[in-house]
Amino acid sequence: MRILGIDASLRSTGLAVIEQQAGRLSAVEYAQIKNPTTLPHSSCLRRVHEEVVAVLKRCEPAAAAIEGGFYFKNARTALVLGEVRGVVIAACASAGVAIYEYSPRLVKQALTGFGAAQKDQVSKMVMGMLGLKESPQEDAADALAIAICHLQNQSTIAALKSEPI
Amino acid sequence: MRILGIDASLRSTGLAVIEQQAGRLSAVEYAQIKNPTTLPHSSCLRRVHEEVVAVLKRCEPAAAAIEGGFYFKNARTALVLGEVRGVVIAACASAGVAIYEYSPRLVKQALTGFGAAQKDQVSKMVMGMLGLKESPQEDAADALAIAICHLQNQSTIAALKSEPI
Repeated sequence: MRILGIDASLRSTGLAVIEQQAGRLSAVEYAQIKNPTTLPHSSCLRRVHEEVVAVLKRCEPAAAAIEGGFYFKNARTALVLGEVRGVVIAACASAGVAIYEYSPRLVKQALTGFGAAQKDQVSKMVMGMLGLKESPQEDAADALAIAICHLQNQSTIAALKSEPI
Repeated sequence: MRILGIDASLRSTGLAVIEQQAGRLSAVEYAQIKNPTTLPHSSCLRRVHEEVVAVLKRCEPAAAAIEGGFYFKNARTALVLGEVRGVVIAACASAGVAIYEYSPRLVKQALTGFGAAQKDQVSKMVMGMLGLKESPQEDAADALAIAICHLQNQSTIAALKSEPI
């Protein structure tokens, strides 16, 4: 089973696909979609859309997972993050791929057993669980972590009555 | 010249295309995209995406206009509106259609000469300017108003150095 993990943001989105086969986890691919600050706002959203559509087609994940339940300091930040999320969610929905949402705390908890873990702790756990030799770029690592979190929660989703967005 | 106006929201999005020919304004089409409350969040975003892609293909507008510069009471509202905006902006960008943003106050100002005008005043001006016999549904009327606002500001865009999103 393949899972797409997405760490969405306008200027740097992490996209990662992991696979579980015979209980063994591996990374199919992971990347940072970096939009230069010179790229117009609408072109950034277009690019994220194109990249998500492409990875959905290329890897055919069974489900997708994104971060949710943030705390925002201001509405402007929320609006812009919402724009990127909208693009991602609509692309998954158009491909018929159910998308689940996990809070940053739950992702950290799932990976390290500690909801307030540091970024480098999460990154190290990601590397260990997937057998990566090099540390992934930060947003790609977050995308891998979200995908792993979803897989780990798979068995409890029915029990929790967790539903896709 | 055709302009697409969009009044974006998750449950009820207004889409309108107006046309200016020989100085005369007319409505090409306008509609409310109503998503029932029973429809999952991701399906609402998917539907808005599909409808915007379809209207872009059907009507081939030269530019699009949406509302912007809102005041948000809370970040959750901003996040959800952002999601719908992201879908709309990415669809226009993918079609190569430049998208402009106008504050609600500027839209009212452009239509009625008064930035704090009531909804029914704006709706009546829309009807008069487009020669409509019946009052459009509220969100469709807002979409028509945004499109008219963009056309009226066309000549001043260069002077104001206004740029698409």
